[in-house]
Amino acid sequence: MSERAVVLFSGGLDSTTLLYSLRAEGFEVLPLVVNYGQKHVQEMRSASRIAEALSVPLTRALLNAALQPIFAGAESSQVGSRVEVPKGHYESESMKLTIVPNRNMLLIAVAGAFAVSRKANVVAYAAHAGDHAIYPDCRQEFVESCARTLHIATDVELLAPFAGISKTEIVRRGAKLQVPFEFTYSCYEGGLAHCGLCGTCFERREAFRDAGVPDPTEYAPIALKEI
Amino acid sequence: MSERAVVLFSGGLDSTTLLYSLRAEGFEVLPLVVNYGQKHVQEMRSASRIAEALSVPLTRALLNAALQPIFAGAESSQVGSRVEVPKGHYESESMKLTIVPNRNMLLIAVAGAFAVSRKANVVAYAAHAGDHAIYPDCRQEFVESCARTLHIATDVELLAPFAGISKTEIVRRGAKLQVPFEFTYSCYEGGLAHCGLCGTCFERREAFRDAGVPDPTEYAPIALKEI
Repeated sequence: MSERAVVLFSGGLDSTTLLYSLRAEGFEVLPLVVNYGQKHVQEMRSASRIAEALSVPLTRALLNAALQPIFAGAESSQVGSRVEVPKGHYESESMKLTIVPNRNMLLIAVAGAFAVSRKANVVAYAAHAGDHAIYPDCRQEFVESCARTLHIATDVELLAPFAGISKTEIVRRGAKLQVPFEFTYSCYEGGLAHCGLCGTCFERREAFRDAGVPDPTEYAPIALKEI
Repeated sequence: MSERAVVLFSGGLDSTTLLYSLRAEGFEVLPLVVNYGQKHVQEMRSASRIAEALSVPLTRALLNAALQPIFAGAESSQVGSRVEVPKGHYESESMKLTIVPNRNMLLIAVAGAFAVSRKANVVAYAAHAGDHAIYPDCRQEFVESCARTLHIATDVELLAPFAGISKTEIVRRGAKLQVPFEFTYSCYEGGLAHCGLCGTCFERREAFRDAGVPDPTEYAPIALKEI
């Protein structure tokens, strides 16, 4: 029997590589974009291009407006009262401002509901080792507990195959799978070009450099000299 | 320090008693109504009345429209393709049609995000022993696993103080706390009066009868002779 996987998908480098990777393993993939309030125009454009490149149907759940009362009191650069996006390396304390309260449990719960509705037996998300310092809901302990919770409720299996590897390794795997990295988008600022200076841009640039893979990303000119 | 609890609240008998009960224990309560697609006009009216009676602010997250693509394929009387609401006792096989895919994980995840945003240290929901036969996400095993997952992600504690007791016992407790049962609403049909014949109406009528507490509910005339 062919397996069917709902893939939490943002159009970013990690979840795109996850999508390609599961597909290469033989899964029927159902990419799911959940908007919870992040700046999303560029992400949506990327997600659509990638789904088109793979000829897979893309499902969108636009929860942003409905979640406004939920995040209204949050201090985050991504939702709620919108503090400024911090610049610099992911491991710095200031990156905690990018935390979206209970983000991954929420995304996985929505993906789990979608999986049951569409008779998929797997939900997958692209947490990776580089996220651990800042985001508790990317750590192995969370993955295991959340997998158990989801399984009790729905019989659906949760996979986070990148939870033990670095973004550099994701870039290497993506290159082998011929992931169209130039279509992916991950900047926290949400501009047309990647800012090159926020946590996720920093990490992206380092990952390409360390993997020895050419970086096709278009960065805003100011960023180019900074790494 | 006073404790602050987000209470998943539907305006029904169970969650209203939970709200009164936590308040009596000294919690500052933040009732949260999440609409995920259920028939909700009467529930919302009830929830508003009860919050007003308690003088507590009510928060609503109206996710129903945004979740339509998620539940589109689901076979449920409550969301998605909308099969007919089954009549009769909760323990019958047909009641599985009332399952909303991954409902409680989704509600708890949203409540967890709200708790962090509002600096609450507790999320509470009103799963009870009578739900166990049909709903895996009301069982103790789920409560414990979900509590652990939420705590890893957010440090928020999950409480389900009714998970080990029957609805009859909830009615007894509610009566002691002077819960205005006449304001509560739980019918799956969503009509002005309770239908008296769906799983939740059946259970409600039995609970009042077995608790020896007068039932102030207005049932549709056809129901009155059936119990």
